[in-house]
Amino acid sequence: MSEPLPGPALVIKPEGMTGRTGRYEKRLSDLDGLFADAEAFAARLATEADRVIYHVDEFRPSGAAGDLITGISTLSAGRVGAEFHMTRGHIHAQHDRTEIYHCLSGHGLMLMETLDGQTVVTELRPGVVAYVPPVHIHRSVNLGDEDLVTLFCYPADAGQDYGIIARSGGMRHRAVADGTGWRLEENSGYVPR
Amino acid sequence: MSEPLPGPALVIKPEGMTGRTGRYEKRLSDLDGLFADAEAFAARLATEADRVIYHVDEFRPSGAAGDLITGISTLSAGRVGAEFHMTRGHIHAQHDRTEIYHCLSGHGLMLMETLDGQTVVTELRPGVVAYVPPVHIHRSVNLGDEDLVTLFCYPADAGQDYGIIARSGGMRHRAVADGTGWRLEENSGYVPR
Repeated sequence: MSEPLPGPALVIKPEGMTGRTGRYEKRLSDLDGLFADAEAFAARLATEADRVIYHVDEFRPSGAAGDLITGISTLSAGRVGAEFHMTRGHIHAQHDRTEIYHCLSGHGLMLMETLDGQTVVTELRPGVVAYVPPVHIHRSVNLGDEDLVTLFCYPADAGQDYGIIARSGGMRHRAVADGTGWRLEENSGYVPR
Repeated sequence: MSEPLPGPALVIKPEGMTGRTGRYEKRLSDLDGLFADAEAFAARLATEADRVIYHVDEFRPSGAAGDLITGISTLSAGRVGAEFHMTRGHIHAQHDRTEIYHCLSGHGLMLMETLDGQTVVTELRPGVVAYVPPVHIHRSVNLGDEDLVTLFCYPADAGQDYGIIARSGGMRHRAVADGTGWRLEENSGYVPR
């Protein structure tokens, strides 16, 4: 008689996570060139270069087609000039691979863009499961005063292409403070693909 | 100038869900043959045949490889004899397709089984993200006193094979009450594959 075995699981607890297979962190110094206000970025860099702006804990069982990579993204609150903290963003190297982001806490955006420059945006609040359709560049933006925490899941063979945003001088829209709220504004440095 | 468009999203709120593309319900009468205690089942059926035991709300953008189906499964609390409420269970028709279940509320099990009869089990409590590996039959079991609510995500081309459980006379183990707790017991009607 074989006894039941414990299954693999990612367990999210206030005191920390168990079951992850990897973690990466992005510090302020890793995000050079992302924000419009170079002067504000330099001023923060002088004292906060090593500050972790976001980190990702993941469970990556394999890279096989049909498998899934799951994890938790934690994006800190803050701004560079008027612009809210955001992730680098990417498109999946296999363009038709989709993704979901389930907002667990905080307030933010899933900022998306098609290859021909159509911006698509989903506001993230707890309970929202944003869907990133095929062939959509996507990044998270934190609009709030606390961490934006999302559970993501995507096909394990998706891959990431980060260069697509850099080659266009960023995404078409930027999320900036507007009084006590936010708005999207055109990115003046945007180069259509 | 094209204005930003709203993105697709599934929104889970206490007052109901928006954004789903489909929903299905399983009533007690749909679950004939699942539970060991036929007499206890018949007794409940006499008064509760139409009671919804579980329902699934889903967001299914397509059935394409590389796409994802996401949704919420809500499994009611209760027992048939000593055996806790459970879903029918299945294996993915494409055997290598995996799945995650993120427990949002309640207490239960992700009860899994390999083709050669090894039981694998993950206890579900809020914060647990259970991973169903390739080629694992799986079903949810509600061990608690309230609904077991899970967010699931799986590859859109996975498909479901429900017959695999029926052909073996059920899964190898059953989850039954044990005092105020629970235990797994061997399914006496189990036929190895």
